[in-house]
Amino acid sequence: MSLSNASIDGARLLADLHRLRTFGIYKTGVHRPTYSPVDMAAREWVAERMREAGLEPEIDGVGNVIGRGEGVGPRVLLGSHTETQPHAGWLDGALGVLYGIEVARTLGRGVDVASWADEEGHFSSFPGSRSYVGDLTEADIDAGRSRDGQTMRDALRDAGLAGRARAKFAPGQYLGYLEAHIEQGDELEAKGLKIGVVTAIVGSWQHRIQFVGVQNHAGTTRMAIRKDAGLALVKLACAIDQRFPEVAAERTVWTTGRIALDPGVSSIVPGGAEMNFQFRDTDPEVLKRLGATLEELVADANKGPCTVTVHRGSRSVPKLMDAGFQDALERAAERHAPGLHQRMPSGAGHDAQQLARVMPAAMLFVPSIGGISHHWAEDTKEEDIVLGCQVFADAVAEILAR
Amino acid sequence: MSLSNASIDGARLLADLHRLRTFGIYKTGVHRPTYSPVDMAAREWVAERMREAGLEPEIDGVGNVIGRGEGVGPRVLLGSHTETQPHAGWLDGALGVLYGIEVARTLGRGVDVASWADEEGHFSSFPGSRSYVGDLTEADIDAGRSRDGQTMRDALRDAGLAGRARAKFAPGQYLGYLEAHIEQGDELEAKGLKIGVVTAIVGSWQHRIQFVGVQNHAGTTRMAIRKDAGLALVKLACAIDQRFPEVAAERTVWTTGRIALDPGVSSIVPGGAEMNFQFRDTDPEVLKRLGATLEELVADANKGPCTVTVHRGSRSVPKLMDAGFQDALERAAERHAPGLHQRMPSGAGHDAQQLARVMPAAMLFVPSIGGISHHWAEDTKEEDIVLGCQVFADAVAEILAR
Repeated sequence: MSLSNASIDGARLLADLHRLRTFGIYKTGVHRPTYSPVDMAAREWVAERMREAGLEPEIDGVGNVIGRGEGVGPRVLLGSHTETQPHAGWLDGALGVLYGIEVARTLGRGVDVASWADEEGHFSSFPGSRSYVGDLTEADIDAGRSRDGQTMRDALRDAGLAGRARAKFAPGQYLGYLEAHIEQGDELEAKGLKIGVVTAIVGSWQHRIQFVGVQNHAGTTRMAIRKDAGLALVKLACAIDQRFPEVAAERTVWTTGRIALDPGVSSIVPGGAEMNFQFRDTDPEVLKRLGATLEELVADANKGPCTVTVHRGSRSVPKLMDAGFQDALERAAERHAPGLHQRMPSGAGHDAQQLARVMPAAMLFVPSIGGISHHWAEDTKEEDIVLGCQVFADAVAEILAR
Repeated sequence: MSLSNASIDGARLLADLHRLRTFGIYKTGVHRPTYSPVDMAAREWVAERMREAGLEPEIDGVGNVIGRGEGVGPRVLLGSHTETQPHAGWLDGALGVLYGIEVARTLGRGVDVASWADEEGHFSSFPGSRSYVGDLTEADIDAGRSRDGQTMRDALRDAGLAGRARAKFAPGQYLGYLEAHIEQGDELEAKGLKIGVVTAIVGSWQHRIQFVGVQNHAGTTRMAIRKDAGLALVKLACAIDQRFPEVAAERTVWTTGRIALDPGVSSIVPGGAEMNFQFRDTDPEVLKRLGATLEELVADANKGPCTVTVHRGSRSVPKLMDAGFQDALERAAERHAPGLHQRMPSGAGHDAQQLARVMPAAMLFVPSIGGISHHWAEDTKEEDIVLGCQVFADAVAEILAR
């Protein structure tokens, strides 16, 4: 039988996914923060599964689990991640890693599999895949810190990873990297589609915007003399809401995810305020236009009674997915789900954007029920999970057979 | 010499104020939360000062310190409070209590003095003065709780006050109640004035406004289908900012002091949001008009993608100050600071609004430097402190002499 006719074992795949869900199960989802005992137990379990699939597993110095096969000939690297957001879904990341192992088992050769550490950013931004592509310094690890203040160094030590070498890719080692993932949006479901072939991963620009006014008594301070930092924040957020649609592209998204007032009590005019604001698009020109618009709005805001400062956070560059890989994924999708697939950008960041810096990379999406993501209720129909893996396996087989 | 010519001892008053500041001193201010060990030590010190002034002190079951003099004839009650807001000013409350003791010492008769417990609301809303006027039930005390979760019962027990009787006013016991306080605003200073005669204490309406949307991924959720609870909040806060000036009176103030987004992280579209919103005015009709406007704006907000609910908090009624007492304060101000006084409302709540429910009440304000309040930098010039006490003493003497 030709590689591209090899059938995956859907029951085996689903059994593995359900087994991985038991590590940190929370309601119907999972709570598995990076480097926590339950996360490390899951990594050990993944390594064991790789070994059973004929791959030699390694857990490296940053927590990446990489299973490598033997033999000569062309190879591809498949992967995703196994830690989760707090109280989040059972498939986000896990699906891509177990698709990789299932494809390795099905094709029997040419496939290595990786579970990248901390894609969810508990300690740093994509430290696992960045380490692998050579873009994570020891100083970056020193600077890593979780939201509750634990250092990445302490977490790595507690997880038993201190002192281990970190795996690095060798140029020319792979034809490329492929990653499957749940969509995390509602678009495939809303259109009745089964497969998304990712064209590009958005770039995102992060900002922390700070407002300084004067804290005062909410009863005795006349409106005319107030320097209300909270009001300055609210006005800027409203101005963004009014202005951004005029300069955004069709798929642009922008979000104020966090607001904090200081001191934040009912009877005090806030003297300080802060918001986290981000926007994402696949087009670098659109990102620049949005950045310039934000600067204009902040300049306007500074004409008011408070001082407004933008602290620039991380800026990821949009990453185009490999055209040939996209074609292979599309052909496989058309074989197994004729007419029920589309090309689409990824609004979320993924390890594939790091791998794409050093090799051809591509992604496949399966539908998310109700578009729910980063929540324990996240889910995908079992038939869609199995179908997605078959499409993924076919595309990998075609790429290896070229 | 006639009572109204009696001179207070400014040096003695200032020495007492500086001594009271040492209880919980923080930078140039004070941190003295209600019922904390340092607050109780301050109450004991105040009681001792009352005893030296010829008053018999009692610390009652809610922490009120009340010093009562002997002798027949008309009496007035003077007072304020001695606990502070966190890391707040040295004069807020302390000034009024020590003015009372200084006036008792100066006039030698007819003056009782009270330091009301928890005017700053660490556990409840004016529990000390409400207890005294008969409007604090045992159930109210059971319900009292600090922001960090300590019950009022536990705090009273730890302060050694459990089981003590609570003092109650007897009708006809006093001609009335007078309270001196720092202005906590910048109006007297801005106009170069030395004394404010309070005409009324504002009523305030408190609200907690809740927004329910759908939490989702900030990268994968298209703008068109978002139900962003944080954005709904920001839009309502902006609508209030635009609309309230049209329906407010000259002295109305309104404040959004607290905003919280759920979960409140940069890469998640907030599924929940909450704001604390309050407004204050001396005119009940204005308060009603503002309340109706808020309801209209919330009804508009509910036409958007999120559900908006207003939880009505406490509503205090505006309290007019006694006209005769105001005249006495104004005459005394004109004697000692000719032309440098004005009548004005109080934007802050005070124990006087509780006492005004059962007897004539009035208030005198002294200037606050830069209008700073509820902050350790709060201050008043020493010459203004001494002048204010002399005016206060003269007015009390005139009221007693009627």
